Amino acid sequence: MNKQAIIHRPTDQHAYVCADNSVNIMIQTQKGDCKGIHFIHGDPYDWEEKKWKNKKIAMRKTGTDQLYDYWQVTIKPASHRLRYGFKLNDGENPLYFGEGGFSAQEPNDIAFYFCIPYVHVSDAFQAPAWVKNTVWYQIFPERFANGNTKNDPKDTLAWGSSEPTADNFFGGDLQGVIEQISYLKELGITGLYFTPIFKAYSNHKYDTIDYLEIDPQFGDKETLKQLIKVCHDNGIKVMLDAVFNHSGFYFPLFQDVVEKGEKSKYKDWFHIHDFPLIFEPKPNYDTFAFTPFMPKLNTQNEEVRNYLLNVGRYWVEEFDIDGWRLDVANEVDHGFWRDFHKVVKGIKPDLYILGEIWHDAMPWLRGDQFDAVMNYPFTRNILDLFAKESIDRKTFAENMTAVIHMYPASIHTNAFNLVGSHDTPRILHECSGDKRKVQQIFTFLLTFIGTPCIYYGDEIGIDGDGDPGCRKCMIWDEEQQDRHMLEHVRKLITLRKNHPLLANEGNLSFLPVEMNSHCFAFMKEKQDKTIIVIFNLSDQEEQFTLPAHQNRQMPIDLWTGNKVKDKKIPLEARGFSILEF
Amino acid sequence: MNKQAIIHRPTDQHAYVCADNSVNIMIQTQKGDCKGIHFIHGDPYDWEEKKWKNKKIAMRKTGTDQLYDYWQVTIKPASHRLRYGFKLNDGENPLYFGEGGFSAQEPNDIAFYFCIPYVHVSDAFQAPAWVKNTVWYQIFPERFANGNTKNDPKDTLAWGSSEPTADNFFGGDLQGVIEQISYLKELGITGLYFTPIFKAYSNHKYDTIDYLEIDPQFGDKETLKQLIKVCHDNGIKVMLDAVFNHSGFYFPLFQDVVEKGEKSKYKDWFHIHDFPLIFEPKPNYDTFAFTPFMPKLNTQNEEVRNYLLNVGRYWVEEFDIDGWRLDVANEVDHGFWRDFHKVVKGIKPDLYILGEIWHDAMPWLRGDQFDAVMNYPFTRNILDLFAKESIDRKTFAENMTAVIHMYPASIHTNAFNLVGSHDTPRILHECSGDKRKVQQIFTFLLTFIGTPCIYYGDEIGIDGDGDPGCRKCMIWDEEQQDRHMLEHVRKLITLRKNHPLLANEGNLSFLPVEMNSHCFAFMKEKQDKTIIVIFNLSDQEEQFTLPAHQNRQMPIDLWTGNKVKDKKIPLEARGFSILEF
Repeated sequence: MNKQAIIHRPTDQHAYVCADNSVNIMIQTQKGDCKGIHFIHGDPYDWEEKKWKNKKIAMRKTGTDQLYDYWQVTIKPASHRLRYGFKLNDGENPLYFGEGGFSAQEPNDIAFYFCIPYVHVSDAFQAPAWVKNTVWYQIFPERFANGNTKNDPKDTLAWGSSEPTADNFFGGDLQGVIEQISYLKELGITGLYFTPIFKAYSNHKYDTIDYLEIDPQFGDKETLKQLIKVCHDNGIKVMLDAVFNHSGFYFPLFQDVVEKGEKSKYKDWFHIHDFPLIFEPKPNYDTFAFTPFMPKLNTQNEEVRNYLLNVGRYWVEEFDIDGWRLDVANEVDHGFWRDFHKVVKGIKPDLYILGEIWHDAMPWLRGDQFDAVMNYPFTRNILDLFAKESIDRKTFAENMTAVIHMYPASIHTNAFNLVGSHDTPRILHECSGDKRKVQQIFTFLLTFIGTPCIYYGDEIGIDGDGDPGCRKCMIWDEEQQDRHMLEHVRKLITLRKNHPLLANEGNLSFLPVEMNSHCFAFMKEKQDKTIIVIFNLSDQEEQFTLPAHQNRQMPIDLWTGNKVKDKKIPLEARGFSILEF
Repeated sequence: MNKQAIIHRPTDQHAYVCADNSVNIMIQTQKGDCKGIHFIHGDPYDWEEKKWKNKKIAMRKTGTDQLYDYWQVTIKPASHRLRYGFKLNDGENPLYFGEGGFSAQEPNDIAFYFCIPYVHVSDAFQAPAWVKNTVWYQIFPERFANGNTKNDPKDTLAWGSSEPTADNFFGGDLQGVIEQISYLKELGITGLYFTPIFKAYSNHKYDTIDYLEIDPQFGDKETLKQLIKVCHDNGIKVMLDAVFNHSGFYFPLFQDVVEKGEKSKYKDWFHIHDFPLIFEPKPNYDTFAFTPFMPKLNTQNEEVRNYLLNVGRYWVEEFDIDGWRLDVANEVDHGFWRDFHKVVKGIKPDLYILGEIWHDAMPWLRGDQFDAVMNYPFTRNILDLFAKESIDRKTFAENMTAVIHMYPASIHTNAFNLVGSHDTPRILHECSGDKRKVQQIFTFLLTFIGTPCIYYGDEIGIDGDGDPGCRKCMIWDEEQQDRHMLEHVRKLITLRKNHPLLANEGNLSFLPVEMNSHCFAFMKEKQDKTIIVIFNLSDQEEQFTLPAHQNRQMPIDLWTGNKVKDKKIPLEARGFSILEF
């Protein structure tokens, strides 16, 4: 066996406590190297009695990527304590693996084995229960709907009259969202994620001027209260966007430093290298990226910390929001996020905390900071397969398997899955205008694991390149909307609600790829139920042959409602099928 | 290359922020697989400009164990941000490795690379500065010295008159320690670690009755104040032992549950499965191990948490102690330890927090919980080589290399290194009475990295098997003491103080093992200075040939003070040599 490829450490995705007092253990081995793995375990304090000698459980192979096989087991230790090791079987001689390394014989010494000292549910990663059944909808408030023209900013352009630019305005506001609540309700979404609504300079509002005020172009606090009430009355959660990494240039406390320089009492609120301040060509203070307009806040400073924690507290306590999305969350210190977690969950234990992190986010997802991150590795993989066709089906399944085994399972069922946002080209653009591909992507997004988010307007076929092109005005004229796409998304959301296996239930696996077809399928299984979702990636009609399974009846096609009569499932060009057994 | 054996993730020992704003990066590859590795890096926000294309740094190979080579680099990013990857060279084709996997070409896409989003010193693991230069001495108070016979418990036996048992008493107390301060001062130790001194039932006091009182057999609060003053006056730090995992059976709040059962208002302070309480044959409440006398405290209960946090606070605030050693620390929840860290460091920022953890302790050593753990993997390896001779020199060096690369480097320079404690057989016993072996072990302990701890009496040759044998009374009659061993230890401590390379300075490496000898050596290097420590593991005199090094003069033998004249160093049977270049 490739010993160097046998990877396990009792932390992170390899060993974690679950909310029901069980422990999940995962081990990686070189792809194809092991025939099976047995899990050896016992209580550390009766180890001598060797009762554990008989306690060997076969582990379940839960996936394979380019390099590794992944094996898992879930166990609920009676005494809440666990010492454990692995017996690896390559078909010839068994190999024992523990914290002490490798052994050809089964070691008796307890120090050889890995340790879960005590199962504390308080250490489990636990996102709020409502999250995993939520379907999100992202609103960029300046561009969703203009419900009150009195609060329009100067030089507001007629709705949708021209292309969005970095600094034009169209007058969208909170009243507009209130007025479109029935549209959202009918679509079926159950959570709204708003990009920032606090007082700021730009149209995107990521350059905050006042963290405790609504931007006047969006309305006032009363409007927000009404909006949240109407959302809650309609079973819709509300998540706001907090920009704590940096303030705007016109944040009065930064302006105080601009004016008074070294004498400002706020000089330590930022990361200033020296005085006087320089703005061009490169600021002499830390910023978001290299823009002088977004000075980085020093969250290691206790005054700043208390100020921002109070902001976090205020909107939860006073407005009963349900979630905080945290902008550029990875560039703020872990200590701050631990405090933030404590403060906001202290007020509302089922508040959702979502961090904007584009890369491996394990250090933020250990239960003490975030409930989820924006799942961009998921996005990339989907676009590469369905939209850009730059990877094959096998690579896609392997990549997805790697993504899924990167974190504890409970993180994936709460992952914020998106296929586009205000920061990326729109999905229709990524698909070069091929609406069949867009439909496949929505089908995948809404039947896979994780919590899907729809970027406003994607459901009615709005297009646009990257920022600012992806920030066009929402289209309210039904004639101009792609009603077919809207119906597609609406139907998927309904199916997802009625069939828990389409949301976050069951064990996921990818079906083997058939060489003589261009179809691709995944399966979710739970007790007596099975779902298979199939995609045809070619421009020709194709057939997909259902895998043999003795105990299964013929499935129902959930999309048509018809009973399937043949094992060969016909699929339209760029089509899909959702089958329930 | 063995791709599955190439291991890196931007967390824990593989990527961490240091106190000086630098970042340390480590990668593992299969032993012997790579000729060299270059580190590719740049700022995420000017990645497009590809300035980073020229920024490739050769990584340093810092060790090899049974399976892997370890490579490291330290870098201080100008903008505090870092995207990075690795260019691995196997002598033929380069291989690029990043978060996105492997590539034969150097990828341009930033998403391929690993990310350190922003360097916050507040996220660095930082033990108090004084710790790494401390030489600890562990005292089991009942057995160190009896300074006040008036507080002796009932049936106290004459000092050292019989073997220690699980429940006999000899009358050791705090006054005894005060009276022996000159002994400790002369020995040269700079930190005292006391096993518990709070009111308890047993002789070991791990079954607390009152967390806020000194056990009357040890003295009172006034005695402790005097003891701490006399220690501080003599440059000695004081660390107490907190038993927060469980209380004693006679803890009044547990007794309240014993008496009132389900009606006790303290019933949720423990982990009670059902009522009425059962004690035999197996308690129906969680305990330390399976003993009914140590009921486990429910640290997930806020009342318990606040109670214990107040205990942590009290002895720091009122008595100015310098450290807390935490008993069975691994079985208490992480959330509690995070709060504890915050509370006690809030009062005294340079307080030392040491957890009792015998196994891999990474999840406790991320900067938010402990400063160090008791380094038992180190202990085991030393005993296996020097005392039990159950492993060879190469295995020893490989094991030590694995231990050292398990955690960030700053954790090792603060690691609590011990070769025996109140929980293990005494070192003389482990060496089957061979005092030359004991001397070698002390030599290793006091010249290696980490902070050494001497268990009371080992320095004067007290013997004894495991608990209770290892808890004999300290011998104060100089005629009975092994004065030669005492002098050996004293001399080592003095050398360690005068030669920083013997403590925690320099880069450590193990010298290649010569096949025709039984010698074993390690080296520490820093700028112009080098230390080599050599051990002869055989019962014959041997010679060790110094490795060639062009720029080095002949060394000084620090033990004799003589200049070495020949590259062949003579070593006595089971002898050692400490050379400085």
